[in-house]
Amino acid sequence: MTRPLRVGIAGLGTVGASVIRILERQNEVVAQRGGRPVQVMAISARDKTKDRGFDLSRFSWFDSPVELARSAEVDCVVELVGGADGTALETVQTALSLGKHVVTANKALLAKHGLMLARLAEEKGASLAFEASVAGGIPIIKTLREALPANRISRLYGILNGTCNYILSRMELEGLTFAECLKDAQRLGYAEADPTFDVEGFDTAHKLAILTSLAFGTEIDADAIYVEGISSITPLDLAMAKELGFRIKLLGVAERTKTGIEQRVHPTMVPRTSSIAQVMGVTNAVTIDADAVRELTLIGPGAGGDATASAVVADIADVATGAALPFFGRSIELLERAPRAPMQRHEGGYYIRLTVHDRPGVAAGVATRMAEADISLESILQKRSEIAATQDPHGRSGAPVSLVLITYAATEASIRSALEKISGDGLIAEPPQVIRIERE
Amino acid sequence: MTRPLRVGIAGLGTVGASVIRILERQNEVVAQRGGRPVQVMAISARDKTKDRGFDLSRFSWFDSPVELARSAEVDCVVELVGGADGTALETVQTALSLGKHVVTANKALLAKHGLMLARLAEEKGASLAFEASVAGGIPIIKTLREALPANRISRLYGILNGTCNYILSRMELEGLTFAECLKDAQRLGYAEADPTFDVEGFDTAHKLAILTSLAFGTEIDADAIYVEGISSITPLDLAMAKELGFRIKLLGVAERTKTGIEQRVHPTMVPRTSSIAQVMGVTNAVTIDADAVRELTLIGPGAGGDATASAVVADIADVATGAALPFFGRSIELLERAPRAPMQRHEGGYYIRLTVHDRPGVAAGVATRMAEADISLESILQKRSEIAATQDPHGRSGAPVSLVLITYAATEASIRSALEKISGDGLIAEPPQVIRIERE
Repeated sequence: MTRPLRVGIAGLGTVGASVIRILERQNEVVAQRGGRPVQVMAISARDKTKDRGFDLSRFSWFDSPVELARSAEVDCVVELVGGADGTALETVQTALSLGKHVVTANKALLAKHGLMLARLAEEKGASLAFEASVAGGIPIIKTLREALPANRISRLYGILNGTCNYILSRMELEGLTFAECLKDAQRLGYAEADPTFDVEGFDTAHKLAILTSLAFGTEIDADAIYVEGISSITPLDLAMAKELGFRIKLLGVAERTKTGIEQRVHPTMVPRTSSIAQVMGVTNAVTIDADAVRELTLIGPGAGGDATASAVVADIADVATGAALPFFGRSIELLERAPRAPMQRHEGGYYIRLTVHDRPGVAAGVATRMAEADISLESILQKRSEIAATQDPHGRSGAPVSLVLITYAATEASIRSALEKISGDGLIAEPPQVIRIERE
Repeated sequence: MTRPLRVGIAGLGTVGASVIRILERQNEVVAQRGGRPVQVMAISARDKTKDRGFDLSRFSWFDSPVELARSAEVDCVVELVGGADGTALETVQTALSLGKHVVTANKALLAKHGLMLARLAEEKGASLAFEASVAGGIPIIKTLREALPANRISRLYGILNGTCNYILSRMELEGLTFAECLKDAQRLGYAEADPTFDVEGFDTAHKLAILTSLAFGTEIDADAIYVEGISSITPLDLAMAKELGFRIKLLGVAERTKTGIEQRVHPTMVPRTSSIAQVMGVTNAVTIDADAVRELTLIGPGAGGDATASAVVADIADVATGAALPFFGRSIELLERAPRAPMQRHEGGYYIRLTVHDRPGVAAGVATRMAEADISLESILQKRSEIAATQDPHGRSGAPVSLVLITYAATEASIRSALEKISGDGLIAEPPQVIRIERE
């Protein structure tokens, strides 16, 4: 065997600590896979004194990750510092500039600076590996880059945020509100004290931006993503979804449309019998629609120290072989700059829940506005029965009632315009709930 | 770019023809992925005159695949001839002996001669790639060999035969018998005229043998696999499964147990809420249980020209890069020869459906024999109701009735011994139905 790949690990949280433990435990397998031994030489973290359950003295210690990246005894820097800018960015830039390989789990960094960093890596002939940045232990990056050259991908969608899926799963199974489930998720450590980043869809958007670029061979374009979170989802929506044969998931969706690449993150009605609908709790999943394989779905752990570390270690082994691919699986020069498909031109089915005044002609008025906007309705459901009565404060007779519409494919623009008119007509008592439908 | 990888394709059925079309259509992407152009130079098939929808005259024609393998204008032979021996074997041996790379979709060949061929490839420094041999378009080989070096795999199970899954799905959804569904599958081209190889589990066993060796780093040992097919499954079993919260799938299972590596193929009760239970029709799926990623499931097309060709083309691109791994992801020298865990020592839950005489004391007699064999029962279900009455010819009162037992973990040996005694006691009117339970 040739000389070992010398690794420096910047950031010793649960993932970093797990990487060190796994590289020890799976020493031989990793060496086999990588074609040479992998040896952790240096580490960097905020607190040197914290007990991490293993002996730090075997490694060179750096107070600064950037200094670790500069160290002559490191060939490959594992960046687990986090954050889109600051130290993480400086560490990765420093390492790549020196021609050192980088393995990172940092989706925020890549969503923002991925293109620039990929260019730097390409110039310097260094690897920039990032399997751990999306969907934890699921080998989705490897699959997109290496397993599908025969395919033209038409769509990709996934459950990319465990926190949201945990909350939606519990809301559905236990009939709880968003606020109740969020509190529980925070107590169990599945959600941050400030949950905005997760529950409003930004984390999913970062990951989607990376997957989109790999699926379509396009430049990362995180700013183009339409983002909507799950905080407006009510138990009533989940109950209606069930009745209509759907389940609600926060999906990241990237799709090649006539107008360009559409990227969107929003709560989504998916058919209850689809593979992705079965994915409950903190688990992640990604489905790829492509011409040769038709449909491919990968389901697995989206987070957690060991699962994320599993992806990091796989990347390290790939780097060790020297066969790690360029960031996008192709040279930067060959990336498409695909036109952005604006959300207004999105076309699909819609679930629309209106809280309407309970008086004659309201349903007719709503249906007329829909027809005027050329929107065909697959079903209309007016409910004052069990679901509405028990779970909607407005379910009592005389008060506003729920009117649920399922549309056939319509454009976002036409839906928005119809809803504006319905609102102007004074037919609804509350802002409408709109949830897009994604069919298999 | 360096000089092209020159490919020869032996076998021009649906897969071979699709490989040629895809290599044309995805020309640039494959070249990017492989780091150099891929060019089909030569072809071989049984019938030169058959219209395949493209111009054969661009390629050198060989009547014999073995001659194609010898051709100086071919660097990489794609073997799509099929069969465990004969021409396929000779073609692959010839190519590898000359140091040429081989891409194959031939699971029968690999299950029987994989170790020998891998050794030959290793000696000659040639690649032997086989993604298409298991689960069609699902990148399960790449996942096992490249994505999981951080993991110690404890179990792997999968739906590896589309024909069986199609038949079981239709039996369940439409309440049909095995024979009825088989006939339909044959009519639709999902099953062969002689379906034995598929429905009796042998095809699944070939694929399992390959996956087992990759998952556990062991020599391929197809002879060690316990094999049972689906022809004995009745609509009553499917209905009982539903009532008990299960679904029946033909699984290939490989598991590391105290006694060694257990490999088995049999109809299996899986929890209805599991990812694998959702996989219906001809679709395949594989779940991997491992220490770092916990559970990883891949779902996709198990067969079909384009899906299988997708895997072949991915392999060709890997061969082109020069980074294709050794067959087992490690040198032959490092393979374990793990002890076989005999089926009699298999431990797990069991579904046992007995057709018992409808007289006092029978249930007690059965339960006593189970207790004597140290088998704990999770539930006992005696049914003369809807299911039995409508779907079991013996459901009428006075005649034999169905008694279904679900056991906690018990050994195969103890189950077999208890059933023998129950039979000896004259308690049952028909041979018992035994279906193993696989929990997540």
